[in-house]
Amino acid sequence: MANDFFLQEKFLILAYDHGLEHGPSDFSEKTLDPNFILELASSQEFSAIVLTPGVAQKYYPKFQSKIPLILKLNGKTNLYQGEPISLAYGSVELACRLQAVGVGYTLYPGSKYESLMFKEFGEIKEKAHQKGLGVVAWVYPRGKFIRNETDPEIIKYAVRIGLELGADLVKIKYPLLEAVALKKIFEEIRKIAPETKIVLAGGKKIKEEEFLEVIKSAIEAGINGVLVGRNVWQAENPYLITQEIKKIIFG
Amino acid sequence: MANDFFLQEKFLILAYDHGLEHGPSDFSEKTLDPNFILELASSQEFSAIVLTPGVAQKYYPKFQSKIPLILKLNGKTNLYQGEPISLAYGSVELACRLQAVGVGYTLYPGSKYESLMFKEFGEIKEKAHQKGLGVVAWVYPRGKFIRNETDPEIIKYAVRIGLELGADLVKIKYPLLEAVALKKIFEEIRKIAPETKIVLAGGKKIKEEEFLEVIKSAIEAGINGVLVGRNVWQAENPYLITQEIKKIIFG
Amino acid sequence: MANDFFLQEKFLILAYDHGLEHGPSDFSEKTLDPNFILELASSQEFSAIVLTPGVAQKYYPKFQSKIPLILKLNGKTNLYQGEPISLAYGSVELACRLQAVGVGYTLYPGSKYESLMFKEFGEIKEKAHQKGLGVVAWVYPRGKFIRNETDPEIIKYAVRIGLELGADLVKIKYPLLEAVALKKIFEEIRKIAPETKIVLAGGKKIKEEEFLEVIKSAIEAGINGVLVGRNVWQAENPYLITQEIKKIIFG
Amino acid sequence: MANDFFLQEKFLILAYDHGLEHGPSDFSEKTLDPNFILELASSQEFSAIVLTPGVAQKYYPKFQSKIPLILKLNGKTNLYQGEPISLAYGSVELACRLQAVGVGYTLYPGSKYESLMFKEFGEIKEKAHQKGLGVVAWVYPRGKFIRNETDPEIIKYAVRIGLELGADLVKIKYPLLEAVALKKIFEEIRKIAPETKIVLAGGKKIKEEEFLEVIKSAIEAGINGVLVGRNVWQAENPYLITQEIKKIIFG
Amino acid sequence: MANDFFLQEKFLILAYDHGLEHGPSDFSEKTLDPNFILELASSQEFSAIVLTPGVAQKYYPKFQSKIPLILKLNGKTNLYQGEPISLAYGSVELACRLQAVGVGYTLYPGSKYESLMFKEFGEIKEKAHQKGLGVVAWVYPRGKFIRNETDPEIIKYAVRIGLELGADLVKIKYPLLEAVALKKIFEEIRKIAPETKIVLAGGKKIKEEEFLEVIKSAIEAGINGVLVGRNVWQAENPYLITQEIKKIIFG
Repeated sequence: MANDFFLQEKFLILAYDHGLEHGPSDFSEKTLDPNFILELASSQEFSAIVLTPGVAQKYYPKFQSKIPLILKLNGKTNLYQGEPISLAYGSVELACRLQAVGVGYTLYPGSKYESLMFKEFGEIKEKAHQKGLGVVAWVYPRGKFIRNETDPEIIKYAVRIGLELGADLVKIKYPLLEAVALKKIFEEIRKIAPETKIVLAGGKKIKEEEFLEVIKSAIEAGINGVLVGRNVWQAENPYLITQEIKKIIFG
Repeated sequence: MANDFFLQEKFLILAYDHGLEHGPSDFSEKTLDPNFILELASSQEFSAIVLTPGVAQKYYPKFQSKIPLILKLNGKTNLYQGEPISLAYGSVELACRLQAVGVGYTLYPGSKYESLMFKEFGEIKEKAHQKGLGVVAWVYPRGKFIRNETDPEIIKYAVRIGLELGADLVKIKYPLLEAVALKKIFEEIRKIAPETKIVLAGGKKIKEEEFLEVIKSAIEAGINGVLVGRNVWQAENPYLITQEIKKIIFG
Repeated sequence: MANDFFLQEKFLILAYDHGLEHGPSDFSEKTLDPNFILELASSQEFSAIVLTPGVAQKYYPKFQSKIPLILKLNGKTNLYQGEPISLAYGSVELACRLQAVGVGYTLYPGSKYESLMFKEFGEIKEKAHQKGLGVVAWVYPRGKFIRNETDPEIIKYAVRIGLELGADLVKIKYPLLEAVALKKIFEEIRKIAPETKIVLAGGKKIKEEEFLEVIKSAIEAGINGVLVGRNVWQAENPYLITQEIKKIIFG
Repeated sequence: MANDFFLQEKFLILAYDHGLEHGPSDFSEKTLDPNFILELASSQEFSAIVLTPGVAQKYYPKFQSKIPLILKLNGKTNLYQGEPISLAYGSVELACRLQAVGVGYTLYPGSKYESLMFKEFGEIKEKAHQKGLGVVAWVYPRGKFIRNETDPEIIKYAVRIGLELGADLVKIKYPLLEAVALKKIFEEIRKIAPETKIVLAGGKKIKEEEFLEVIKSAIEAGINGVLVGRNVWQAENPYLITQEIKKIIFG
Repeated sequence: MANDFFLQEKFLILAYDHGLEHGPSDFSEKTLDPNFILELASSQEFSAIVLTPGVAQKYYPKFQSKIPLILKLNGKTNLYQGEPISLAYGSVELACRLQAVGVGYTLYPGSKYESLMFKEFGEIKEKAHQKGLGVVAWVYPRGKFIRNETDPEIIKYAVRIGLELGADLVKIKYPLLEAVALKKIFEEIRKIAPETKIVLAGGKKIKEEEFLEVIKSAIEAGINGVLVGRNVWQAENPYLITQEIKKIIFG
């Protein structure tokens, strides 16, 4: 079955697939360079780094001994505004060649094309498990019938989809609410999939205190960590914020 | 051909694929936990349990000797409101690895995408039979041309589709009618596919007496049992209602 | 190439795929039971019987030595009202395992999805011939551009499509006209595909005399027989009408 | 690479795929019979004959030593009026079994489905070349954005598409213009794909003198011949017109 | 991994896929002939030439020792005006047989069909790398949601997509701006994908001085060269302009 990596209880994973999903506007001159991100992830001992196939094949080999890799297999740009669909342009075989511990895949439940992604995810998951890799599911309900992607009921559904489809780690969004309300929601979310490991998407850059507060609420509620990009590497000092986050997650 | 499991005449199968189909809103805190459901199914000697691939791979292994598994291979969320389509995200191979006795597949006859599901079902059915597994078909006519899914004529068509496509067990809905009318309909349904094993979907939670009455009418009419979820595990005491149902089905 | 079965010059084939195509409303209590149909076909020495995969795998084995089987590989319900498409949910391999003499496939020329069915038909036909089975094509032009499916010009086109695509037996509809006009049309149809074997679809139940008159006109014009369902087994006495039809076809 | 057949400089090929493309209305009682066409092609020493898979498998074997075969692998009826698409219902393997020298494929550049046909053509072309067969491309720009299929600029584009996609012989339409203008256009067309062999589609039956004039203009301009159907076998005397055409092409 | 060809730092590649993409209207009588283009590329020591499968298989073999080949695997005509899609009609295997150093593929991010092209690109890229070939991505955001294809932000996104998907060389468009503004944009583009090799598409023929100025700005900004067609072979003297370009690129 899945890689031992996924037996851990706490995760701080660095995401870096924004170049495809949003374009380079998310990046500063420094963060445009994958080496900067890989150095950050390695030196700060993140649990793993998420890279797209192109970035992984070019930049990961010299970091292979320093930081585990989760290879993101599908993705889409934000240029097309219709019903979302994202199919794999990377393979489990490529992940194996790059010595990744797992693969990542984004699901858009609620899209007109939901069934195509569920089907491809299932095939990838079985192949990954056969080869000893784990699978991380980005579960983002989206499409013309989804009014609010961070509605707590939608997020709960997302968590459960991750469990039902067999992800080893489920990545979900969180709603922007004040701490008490948020913690209550995380506690509810936690119960949706009792033994399933859940990580929060970092999402858009928010104020550091605010973000740390979110993580604190999540961790206290039993969420297993964060899979964060912009809220780390868009921070004034990514190293400092990483330290703060690590304190919260790993205590 | 299909597994010996399907040679039985009476079935009480516990369904637990609601997390994907409807989201966690169907569940209580207790029933969110697949272990609770598997304990219930095992201790009460249900004929089998229906699980999705993700839940099965995580929770079923330690129950393997206690309760037969039917692995549900396809599914869809209720988030998308257009023409229904549900493709397989689990495989017959996975079912074999999990030592399932059979696989489950939902068909939506009447959908714009009917032909894609019929084709995939046919491939899965042949592969399952080659490997000694049986196939359970959820036959739910649905789509913009279907006005009433529980119209008796629609249900009769559903039963026959299950036979024509080669399911070993056909799961159908039932209309909410009073006992006499309902029994008459079950008798008609029974004749639609004389040697085909038919089980009722439990459907939405209804009053216990009412549900037991439905099962009684069905069993008296020769229907082979129920494949029930909510009407058991949403009951105040799932163990008690199970005993009641078992008395009706197995006498 | 195709099975010797298709070297015959005259055919009286019993169709029984209505359960999928139209639902059980075509059936009486007796004809709902595939055993009744198989008994009829066997005892009356029909040339062959047409069954869907589900019915064939369940009921045909004990009739294998008594009546040749044509396994219908595709089909659709009449629930969806848009552009017709019907894809295979049975395979040539299954037909071989059931010791069928041939496979059947419905084509809807004129549909938006014509090319998908032509392509699948071609693949099935080549595989069937490689394995020594023949292929029967139901050729039914249909779709929003087809105003009248039994327009003689449309039927002639259908016959020719059957020849061009390589069917061993082409099944076509007929227009409801009086005997003289009908015979003239059958003669024209006959010439459309000189060496191709053509059988009439029985179609909806019509008056017995009328149906026998249609067959007579067809046979006199050189049509090779009928592939009939409802006009036999919906008859008051299916055995009697079979005798009448056999007299006309086999003399 | 492709068959030696395609090393010839001049071609007079007889087309007979009209039964599928237009239905039998193109045919007389005589020309409905593929034997008549095959006799004509054989006795008059046409370069080759184009047949669909069904006609080829039934009628070609006894003419195998007399006339080379080009097996037309795709086709569509004229019943559907939407964006044109035509997928393969015959295979390179079948062409090999029938000892064809090449395969034919129609492309509809400009259709919404252009990319599907280009992709399938590419796969067929590579397989055909691997097995020693040549490929003839019918290149007919068509679809809602194509106003005039015989606009000289459209035809020039068609010729070039044939070269760019790797056809061994490109079949194009011609505009109905008077001789001087037409010859100028053929000269321009000739230069579009200097070393590519080009044949004219015969198209609808026109007056014999007129058709011969078209061929004369084409041949004088360096076009490599014609792939003609109706203008030969719809002629009052197909044998005579063949002689006239041969004089022009082969001198 | 990819071919050594892609280890070079500077590229002047000659493009010649216009016959499919735009039709022959881009060509003069001389440039219609692939031999002229191949002679030009060989004698002027271009880094490589880009050909479509049809042109490559017919004309490239005798130039194999003189000029490296990049085989363009997909393409579309400009006849269809809807959402752009271009699928492969050539294969990595064909590229190997022709001894190409790499393959080319056009991506249309922002199209409704983006995901189909991303998926096919990923499969081709992995196969090419396994066989020792490099991959050039034409990245052209296009579709109804893209208002201006040469908006600098769109081009920057394109560059990054090329990196994220794993192209060995990324081909992009450039905006028509005056030298100072343009150089600034090239510098920004350069930083988007620091170690990724980027070449400019030549695009429509513009004034020679203007084009040379564009290249100068690009090269000074660290862009790796140009993949040019019309601005070379539509020039009054393609040999002279090539010399001018080479001076700028290779110094």
